[in-house]
This record gives sequence, structure tokens and C-alpha cells, in this order.
Amino acid sequence: MQKINGLLAATFTPFYKDGSLNLSVIPAYAKKLKEDNVTGAFICGTTGEGMFLSLEERKLLTETWIKEQTDDFNIIVHVGTTSVLQSNDLAKHAQQTGASAISAMGPVFLPPSKTSDLVDFCASVANGAPDLPFYYYHIPTISHVNLPMTEFLQASKQKIPNLAGIKFTHRSMMEMIQCLRMDDGKWDILHGFDEELLMGLAAGAEGAVGSTYNYLAPLYNKIIKAFRAGNLQEARELQYKSINFVEILIKYGGGVAGGKPIMKFMGIDCGPLRTPAHNISEDETANYLNELRKLDFFGLD
Amino acid sequence: MQKINGLLAATFTPFYKDGSLNLSVIPAYAKKLKEDNVTGAFICGTTGEGMFLSLEERKLLTETWIKEQTDDFNIIVHVGTTSVLQSNDLAKHAQQTGASAISAMGPVFLPPSKTSDLVDFCASVANGAPDLPFYYYHIPTISHVNLPMTEFLQASKQKIPNLAGIKFTHRSMMEMIQCLRMDDGKWDILHGFDEELLMGLAAGAEGAVGSTYNYLAPLYNKIIKAFRAGNLQEARELQYKSINFVEILIKYGGGVAGGKPIMKFMGIDCGPLRTPAHNISEDETANYLNELRKLDFFGLD
Amino acid sequence: MQKINGLLAATFTPFYKDGSLNLSVIPAYAKKLKEDNVTGAFICGTTGEGMFLSLEERKLLTETWIKEQTDDFNIIVHVGTTSVLQSNDLAKHAQQTGASAISAMGPVFLPPSKTSDLVDFCASVANGAPDLPFYYYHIPTISHVNLPMTEFLQASKQKIPNLAGIKFTHRSMMEMIQCLRMDDGKWDILHGFDEELLMGLAAGAEGAVGSTYNYLAPLYNKIIKAFRAGNLQEARELQYKSINFVEILIKYGGGVAGGKPIMKFMGIDCGPLRTPAHNISEDETANYLNELRKLDFFGLD
Amino acid sequence: MQKINGLLAATFTPFYKDGSLNLSVIPAYAKKLKEDNVTGAFICGTTGEGMFLSLEERKLLTETWIKEQTDDFNIIVHVGTTSVLQSNDLAKHAQQTGASAISAMGPVFLPPSKTSDLVDFCASVANGAPDLPFYYYHIPTISHVNLPMTEFLQASKQKIPNLAGIKFTHRSMMEMIQCLRMDDGKWDILHGFDEELLMGLAAGAEGAVGSTYNYLAPLYNKIIKAFRAGNLQEARELQYKSINFVEILIKYGGGVAGGKPIMKFMGIDCGPLRTPAHNISEDETANYLNELRKLDFFGLD
Repeated sequence: MQKINGLLAATFTPFYKDGSLNLSVIPAYAKKLKEDNVTGAFICGTTGEGMFLSLEERKLLTETWIKEQTDDFNIIVHVGTTSVLQSNDLAKHAQQTGASAISAMGPVFLPPSKTSDLVDFCASVANGAPDLPFYYYHIPTISHVNLPMTEFLQASKQKIPNLAGIKFTHRSMMEMIQCLRMDDGKWDILHGFDEELLMGLAAGAEGAVGSTYNYLAPLYNKIIKAFRAGNLQEARELQYKSINFVEILIKYGGGVAGGKPIMKFMGIDCGPLRTPAHNISEDETANYLNELRKLDFFGLD
Repeated sequence: MQKINGLLAATFTPFYKDGSLNLSVIPAYAKKLKEDNVTGAFICGTTGEGMFLSLEERKLLTETWIKEQTDDFNIIVHVGTTSVLQSNDLAKHAQQTGASAISAMGPVFLPPSKTSDLVDFCASVANGAPDLPFYYYHIPTISHVNLPMTEFLQASKQKIPNLAGIKFTHRSMMEMIQCLRMDDGKWDILHGFDEELLMGLAAGAEGAVGSTYNYLAPLYNKIIKAFRAGNLQEARELQYKSINFVEILIKYGGGVAGGKPIMKFMGIDCGPLRTPAHNISEDETANYLNELRKLDFFGLD
Repeated sequence: MQKINGLLAATFTPFYKDGSLNLSVIPAYAKKLKEDNVTGAFICGTTGEGMFLSLEERKLLTETWIKEQTDDFNIIVHVGTTSVLQSNDLAKHAQQTGASAISAMGPVFLPPSKTSDLVDFCASVANGAPDLPFYYYHIPTISHVNLPMTEFLQASKQKIPNLAGIKFTHRSMMEMIQCLRMDDGKWDILHGFDEELLMGLAAGAEGAVGSTYNYLAPLYNKIIKAFRAGNLQEARELQYKSINFVEILIKYGGGVAGGKPIMKFMGIDCGPLRTPAHNISEDETANYLNELRKLDFFGLD
Repeated sequence: MQKINGLLAATFTPFYKDGSLNLSVIPAYAKKLKEDNVTGAFICGTTGEGMFLSLEERKLLTETWIKEQTDDFNIIVHVGTTSVLQSNDLAKHAQQTGASAISAMGPVFLPPSKTSDLVDFCASVANGAPDLPFYYYHIPTISHVNLPMTEFLQASKQKIPNLAGIKFTHRSMMEMIQCLRMDDGKWDILHGFDEELLMGLAAGAEGAVGSTYNYLAPLYNKIIKAFRAGNLQEARELQYKSINFVEILIKYGGGVAGGKPIMKFMGIDCGPLRTPAHNISEDETANYLNELRKLDFFGLD
């Protein structure tokens, strides 16, 4: 796989009202993403409530998404769990199923405090799918693993032959730039904050993963286009539209709880979040959609 | 099951050198605990590297420990995972196997920030084993779930019929006392800091769970005996011995990494820790055991 | 000065409604504390909004309190600031004025992360009052200085000739016990959590500093008496009364914001808190006092 | 004063070896900054060890710097302390002395948790200098005050007539962009992370404050020039030079401890840091300068 160019949607996991997995919406979901020129799906991650699922559910979801995979639409499977055995098993399955790549966040239970221990963990996960690119998922606020990524890349070279890069969801742009520059730009470093995509582009990122790319990709693709054309002022105006939207999103529960109602509104009903996640109430949802309407949300794209 | 009285060992999970589960030492391990008048084993928890294991391993471990269960030696199975489905499955298995009780820590992935969401999660886990007492495992430094336990108990009454109490591994003794006193002392609140057992006893706790009870139970049983006999000064002297020991334990990696070498030294070889945990080196282990020898460690009991 | 035995009130700083210092209530305030068998006043600390005051105000307050000092009622002056020059100046003033002792918390601006730097800072403060005992004020949640106190005591011996001990407002009872035991019990380690006084006594502490000792000293003196008489059950019952009270106190703003209305209620009007502290509203105050009444607050002592 | 355009140096405070204030280097220091086209000095802030100084020292320092003030070189005085009285006093002094503007960080002692309390505090500080622009200094990692700045600006409009904007040293670029855009771009929002200046420019910032602008302003002015000319690739290359430098700076103690040796190297001897700050040793300093030499540090400008 080449480096990711453009937007990857961190997909939601659809559930029926009774809480069970709803695979039936995936084809329509994938169609929508392709229409929006999204370059692929990052499945079973944070937005996908990945670790709330059983391993069986993750495998089923993977198999279903893989059917939608094309040359222009990659499926990247998040295989992170708290157990190296489980993650290795998911990695194996991803490779057998034909996924484009795998990824794993730092282990959330008893998170390692030494880079070498993190590298060992990732190596043991990644070798379950030796033929697939492996992206370390750096998201300290969720994984509680906050180790220096330049050190990680350096130490991983020998130990993780299929290391491709990092899904970088961390605030230090200095560190992100260092990773982008290391080893003559060899590593694929994906930007992770939709509302600050412009900063990622300014830093040199070519690809990005996010939850709002599920439904607002046209806006973000315009940002990329404007930026690449040298129209920084236009890119900034568009980014500001994203920010105004994300402000409301945060007010109503953030990317996952606030994202699912929008998907439903757009015709892709992903159902409720799974326990222990907090679902916003019907009243809140009504207020939320009203606020979004005022923002001329649908005029954005 | 009645309230726990006395010490529960938070057991280590034995591995072979190649990292696979070593069930062969369990009988000797259980024998040792019984000889030390430990009242039961809390298995697959933090000390047990619980979430590093696969579900299959956890079930095997449970089945093996259950064989050692007697009227005086309870097996309490930690079923906490990041997924309510997995935890419910483990709970079912624990009940089928005949465990004394189950327990689950707050979910470490996307930890809930509202008590009602935590209660819903626990209810969905606990109803997998409706005939077993359920202990919520309150350990905010590990689970990242830090919600008020008085509120949790209050809200759980209606929703978790088999709620028995809390394994309370948190620094607020005020909160612990409130939980001990609530509803006329109905709830079984287990103390969780070995090096401060005396404070737990002063607060009114009758049972305690800890990793050093695996190998130093005689010392702690003396503390309990002295305390109950009203010999506070003696209890304090004995607690100070525990503290001097724990100081060294912390220096050499803490309860899990520092505990396994002691078990080996005592004839119960639990092998290395599983990745991503950090194992101390052979040199460190040698220094460690030397420091312990100076402490007259074996004279303690 | 000998070791502190009994309760020190962490006094409130009285202000007029216009926010200026109100020294006029100090005599009545001191009289009340003495009647309640409080052993002294810890002034200008956290409860005293110490660093909200100007240096001039702190000196005036010190001079006014010193007039109330007797053989049985010590004035301990908190001289902590962000600047070693200012703290040294306050220390000098405390000695000239005749205070019993001084204390300083770890510096809250750019807090040191090495014990040796903290020791240097404290040494430079303490040598402003070479004839007075110096208590380091360990309160990591406020000072953001969280260094190991055993190491601090060890390193301070040579550098702070007038070191007397530590005002220990930190959750680790293990560390507190280690400090109490070091150097044959030489150091005066004062307990700092009123609602957990019983744990401090169990650990071996003889003195304690707290904000609720301003108005509930009779209750706490009963706890000490019961504990020393070996009536642990009674001590626990009394501590539980304190806890039930503190629960309400926390609900209404905590020790400082919630303490001043009680002082007023008891006839010692300490006025509002100074900006940027948050004063509870009149309505909240009314509800607060109602809740306290239900607790049979005045029957406590 | 108009909005700041370009770079403000967050100046170091010069001390003699004995720790006393060294005002004698200020003229040469100011000359150097002017030669480097720095647009002004932000004095007595974090880099300036502001709160380690006595009020008298801060006033002396202010008076000395003001002598260097010109139409093209503004002196902005940080007046933040833990006491509203002290800060108001410093604000008065700054206005009387003729400073260009004042600034104050959120109060580090008992930091407010409600925006309205922060606004009240700032209003009481700012009204000491009603004729000077007031910049709130948003630096949560140092001040421990982390409140939403859009809310702060909104609430301050009525209460702080001389509010000019924010020195924004916080990682959320989304929030920074919101502040830049509020009220038709009325507020002057200064960027605060030198190693990420390019991101600030991309966000729309026109001015920036930082410690490395003391000695590397030519490099950063080239970044600004390249950025404004639309040469993003060049700006990025230059920013990467800054990052490589800052990586070493962090390794040797960070902006303050690592910055003073560079100043000395460049002929402006600012002496040691004041206790409790940590000075790097002579050996470390030698290694440090060696590492900087390899970086072709002096070829940068």
C-alpha cells in the first residue's frame, strides 16, 4: 500500500436498537463515503467503539467492510485490544480477509511507560499480519500511552518490519513534524484532528483520519484542495466552518455520541452507542439538530 | 456468600518462559495460600494481568483455580474487560464453573463519566452471573473510572440485584467509611492497599484484597489479630514492617513486576510478565533479593 | 517549641464586605479557639487565603494574631509565596514578631521537580527565621509540588538546621508513617485531613492542622480522647459524624468557601472570600445552613 | 497600541552570580533584540521567572526596560501574581512608568474553576492600568487555569474595558482560531509556541511571544516572511530548523534553563536561574553547546 492520500473516515459501528451489531447498513455507508471521495475506512477504532465489541463482532464487521474495498477505497482495521493474543488474532484475521492495513493503539490496560515495551507489544501484534502495513495509533488521551513517537519509530525499525507509520492523534505538532521528516519522510503520518486539519496540512501531512469525515468529507476535501492550490485564506475560511460545526458537536457529546445522530439524519442509521457510552437523549438530539440547521450544515458541502 | 473476613490474595497469573499460560503451579500455589490462612483468591485482576489474557485463558485459569475452592477458600473471578459482551460471557462462565463471586473494574476504554452509565455497564455484566455476588472493583488509577462510590451504591440497588459490595482500591478513606456505613453496613467493602491495611481496619473494613497477601499473609494476619485484640501499638509496628518491604517492592517495579520474583523465590514460579508489562532484569532481580534479605524478610512471618 | 500535640486551626482570614482586611474579629476568634482547646493557629495558609494577601496584610495579620499567643496557644505563620525573597522576608518578620514557628508550602509557580531544588528553596526561606521551627507544608494538590517526603527529610537535615517537620496534607499514609518513623521519630509530622483524623491517629500522628478545627474542635478532641483511651469504636462513630458534616461542606464549596458561613453563624464574621475565590450565593448559604441544621450540627459538640 | 505584529521576546531576567538582580545588561539586551527586528519585550513572565521576583525587583526591571522602549519596540509588563492587590499595584506602576501594555496569567494559587471568577480577578488587575491594553495570559500548563477562552472574551467585554486580547500558550488551535475570529477579529491573539509558529500563522495569528525569539528571531522572521510571501515549503523547512533546535533545548532543561546559557554565549550574560528553578551543570552546559554547534546554530540566521 502506498501512503494514504486524503481522508479516511473513522467509521461508526452500526447497532440495532437492541444493541446487537447491524451489518445491513454497511453497503449504503460505504457507497456514501465513496461518493464523498473518502479514500478509505478506518474501522473498529475509537469512533467505531472498537473495544466495546467482542472479537467475533470485530471479525464480522471486518468481513463486511472488506466487501466494499476497492483500489480507491482502503479498509484499515483497528486491531487494538488489551491483550496481545487477541490483537494478534485480529491481525491474522485482517490479513486473511484481505484488508489494506492494520492499526493498534497503545494498550489501555496497564499502559507501558517505556518505549521498548510498547515496541515489543506492537511487534507481537503486527506479526500477526506480516504482509499488511501496520500503523501505530498514537492517541494518548484515550490509550493513556504517551511515549515519544520519534523514539518509537527509531526503535521499531528493526522490530516491526511491516511498520508503515502512525495515526497521529496528539496535540504536539512539533512531534508530528519530526515524525513526518524522519528517515527522509519514509513514514506515513496521518493527521487526527479534523477541526485542525489545516494545521496538519501546514505541517506536511498528506492523509488524515477522523470521525467527521464520515459526513463532512466534501468540506474537508475543499480545504485540502484550497490548501494545495495555495489558497490559504480560503482554506482557513473553510476550516472555520468545520470549527463552528465541531463546537456544536462537542456540546452534544463529541465525535461518537454526537456523530451517530448526524449519520441517521443523512440516511445511515447507526443506532445507539453501546454501554457504557453515553447516548444523548431525544430532546437533546432535537436541539442538536436545530443548532446544526442554523449553521446551514447542508450548505457546507 | 457471607462478607469476606480476612485476606484475599490478588493472585499472579503463572506463565511459562515462552509466555504461554502455566496452569501446573496452581495446586501448589493454592496450597501455600491455604497454609497461610488466606481466605480466598481474587483471580484475573490487576495483579493477575487479567486483561492481558485471552478469554480462553481466563476461562482455563478460572476452571483450574475453582478446583482448589473450599468452604474456607473462595475463588472470586475478575471478569472486567473493555466489552460488556466479553465480561458478561466471563461472568456466565464463572457461575457455571461454580465460583464464589465475580468482580469487574470500571471499563478502561472510553471510561464513563456518569454514574448511571457505569451502573448500566455493571448491571449488564453482573446479570451474566445472577446467582453470584458482584463486587465493583474501584481502582481509579488503573481503570480511569473515578465516580463517587456512595452514588454508585445508591444507584445500583435497583439495577444490580446481586451487588455485594466494592473492592475499594482508592485513597479516600472518607469515601470508604461512607460506603462501609451506608444502608446499615449492608455492603461488603474490601480494603485494597496492603501497606495501609491498618487504616482500613481503623475505618471498619473486615476484608482486604492485595498482591502482597500472596506471600506475606502471616504478617498481615498478625496485624489483623493485634488490631482486633486492641493492641494498636503492635499492629502499627507490624504495619511498619510491611511498609519497609513495600518501599523496596516499589523500587523494583511494584506489586506485579516485583511480586513474581518473590513467588519464585518461595517456590511458586509464576514466570515472566506478559507484554507490554515490564520485567525487571536478572541483575535487578539479584539486587532486589539482596535488599529483601537485609530486611530479614523471611523472619517476618 | 515541642512537638504539636492536638489540634491546630488553619484559620480563615477575615475581610470586610469591601474586601479589605478585618483585624477586629481576631481577639474574639482566638478566644473561641482557646475555649475549644485548640492548641494554636496556623495562619495565612490555604484556608487563610494566604497568597491572595499582600505582604503588608500578611504582616499585619501576623502581628494581630501574635497578641493572642500564649504558652498553650501557638501561632504558626505560613510564609509561603512564589518568591524566595518574599518568603524570607515574611519569615524574618515572623521571628521578629515572636511567632512560635513558620511553615511554607512548595512554591506553586514553576514547582520544582527535584528534591534538592525544593530543599534549597526551603533552606533559603527558613534561614529568614533561624530561631523558629520550620515546617514544610506538603500539599501536592494545591502546591503542585509532589516530591517524596522521606527523601526531603533526609536531604534537609544538613541544609535546614531549624527543620521541625512536615504539615502533611497528602493521601499516602504509607509515606506519612515513614516520615513519623524516620530518625527515631524525631520529626513532627502533622496530619492534614480532618475527615480522616482517625487514620492519622492510627498512623501515629499526635498533632493535626485543619480548617474544620476552627469550629468543630470539640468533636475532634473527643475523637482524640476516645482513640487515646483505646475506645476505637467510639472514635469511629465520632469520625463518622465529622464525615457526614464534611460531605455537606464539600457540597457547598469546600473548606474555605463553606467554612466562612459557619464562622459567621457562630458569631465570628470572617466576611467573603477574596477574588478569584468563589463565594457561594445567599440562596446557597441558606440551603447550606438548613442542611447543617438537620445534621444536628450544634449538638455535635 | 495597535495589534502586535511580529515577534515579542519573552525576556529572561538577568541575575548576578550571587542571585541578585542584574540590571546592567538590559541596554545591550534591548539593542540585540532591536537589531534582530524583534517588535518588543514581554517582561517578568514565565521565561522572566516573574513570580520568583519581589515586587520591588519587578518594578526596577520594568523601569529599566522602559528606558529602551521606542515606537517600534514595545514593553509589555507581566503583572501576574497570586494576589490581586499585588498585581493591581504592579499594573499601576506599569502605567505610571509608561509601558505599552500589561498582561497577567491566571492566578496559580487556588486557580479559579469558573470563568466569571477569572474575569473578576482580571478586571481587578486590569483596572490598575486603565489606559493600557490588557492581555490575558492563557498558559494552563503553568497557571493551572484552564477555562474556555471564547467564554472568557465574551464575559470580559463588559467588565474589562481595556482588554486587548490573549497571549495564547495553549495547544488547542481550534480554540485559538475561534478567539482570532470572534467579534470580527477584534481581539489580538498572540501565538505562544515558537516551535510551532507556522501553525499559528496558518491559523491567522499576526503576533507571537516566545523565549527563543530572544536569540533566534532572524530565523523566525524568515518563517514569517516566507509564509506571508506564500512560500509555505520554505517556511516549513525553516520551522524544521527551529524544531531541531528546540529538541535540544528541551533535552537541556527547556526554555528558561536552556535559554540562559545561549544568551551568555551570545554575549548577554543573564546569570543563573533563581531558586527553586534547576540550573544545568557546567558539564551539561558544555555538552549542550557542543550539540548546538553541530546543528550549525549560528548559520541559522
